[in-house]
Amino acid sequence: MVRTGRRPGQSTTRTVITAAAAQRFTAVGYDATSLRQVAADAGVDPALVRRFFGSKEQLFTAVASALIDPERALAAVVDGPAEQAGERLSRYFLSLLGDVSHPGHLLGLVRSAVTSEHAARLLREFLADGLLRDIAASLASKRPGLGAALAASQLVGLAVARYAVQLPPLTAASTEELVSTVAPVLQYYLTGHAISLKETS
Amino acid sequence: MVRTGRRPGQSTTRTVITAAAAQRFTAVGYDATSLRQVAADAGVDPALVRRFFGSKEQLFTAVASALIDPERALAAVVDGPAEQAGERLSRYFLSLLGDVSHPGHLLGLVRSAVTSEHAARLLREFLADGLLRDIAASLASKRPGLGAALAASQLVGLAVARYAVQLPPLTAASTEELVSTVAPVLQYYLTGHAISLKETS
Repeated sequence: MVRTGRRPGQSTTRTVITAAAAQRFTAVGYDATSLRQVAADAGVDPALVRRFFGSKEQLFTAVASALIDPERALAAVVDGPAEQAGERLSRYFLSLLGDVSHPGHLLGLVRSAVTSEHAARLLREFLADGLLRDIAASLASKRPGLGAALAASQLVGLAVARYAVQLPPLTAASTEELVSTVAPVLQYYLTGHAISLKETS
Repeated sequence: MVRTGRRPGQSTTRTVITAAAAQRFTAVGYDATSLRQVAADAGVDPALVRRFFGSKEQLFTAVASALIDPERALAAVVDGPAEQAGERLSRYFLSLLGDVSHPGHLLGLVRSAVTSEHAARLLREFLADGLLRDIAASLASKRPGLGAALAASQLVGLAVARYAVQLPPLTAASTEELVSTVAPVLQYYLTGHAISLKETS
């Protein structure tokens, strides 16, 4: 993260623009979102959005980066006991998604990627060239790339099934219940090892 | 399946209409699809679509039923050795999704559900009151409802990550490689038992 040369206040303006963009992408999808609308929502000049972010592509990637926070996601995998990586990653991701009744904008990111090939490509590049590559590089696994991608697929599926389709057993389950059930799966994908379960009654 | 009272040819017409509807839902999503368009695509009178399917809601559910085929999906779980249920289910689902370069309409169903709350509710009712309930009823598990829903979430996530976002390790992996990696996860969700792996070199 290069932060050189920014004046005080720029960081706040960027945050306001990123939040407005996340809101737009969530509400109408990638293709129907324009920099002009985002600027109006954020109460700034369109030229400012263009100066800060360049293009809609770069704005989308900035939103993805702000929502997923690759550094924190990677830290969830690598910081701490290796045998609890799946638990930390599932807990981090569920915290990003938020309450079932008030999901965060991460679901909007998934929605954009599912409906726009353009947004799908941007998300793919963002994940494959960044977070998933870094996670794979940290793994002692026979197939680290496949493992990281399958872990991502489980988390995306949880987002769709719990927050968009709202399957009742998933909306009824507590965060802790989901973490304890999904963590062994992420752990298996991340390490490639068979794992045993904590016996619960 | 009540098939009484239909004349020869009706079954073919239903199939043509269902295929046209699947195509529309995939291309433009649930909300932007109309019975009139579907009728035009199928080359039939709109009144015929209404007579066969009633409403857009019922047409959507008919498409979901045709694409997922709940009886075959349930059979994949229950017919055969219990310890291979995860393998059979992952293989069945991947066969529905098709080639990465030519995905079937199942992805369109996911797309509709992710973008339309109405379609999401229909898919939820279709899955929760039918297939997932039946799968849960067949499971000897402590949390059969949660297990069936989490298995569904993994399959939905695979559809989104491999076919929509197209994460490279997932598009590069063969069906057999995906089946062998995902099957233990489905097995774990379906049974609640620890993930065991076939040791491969």
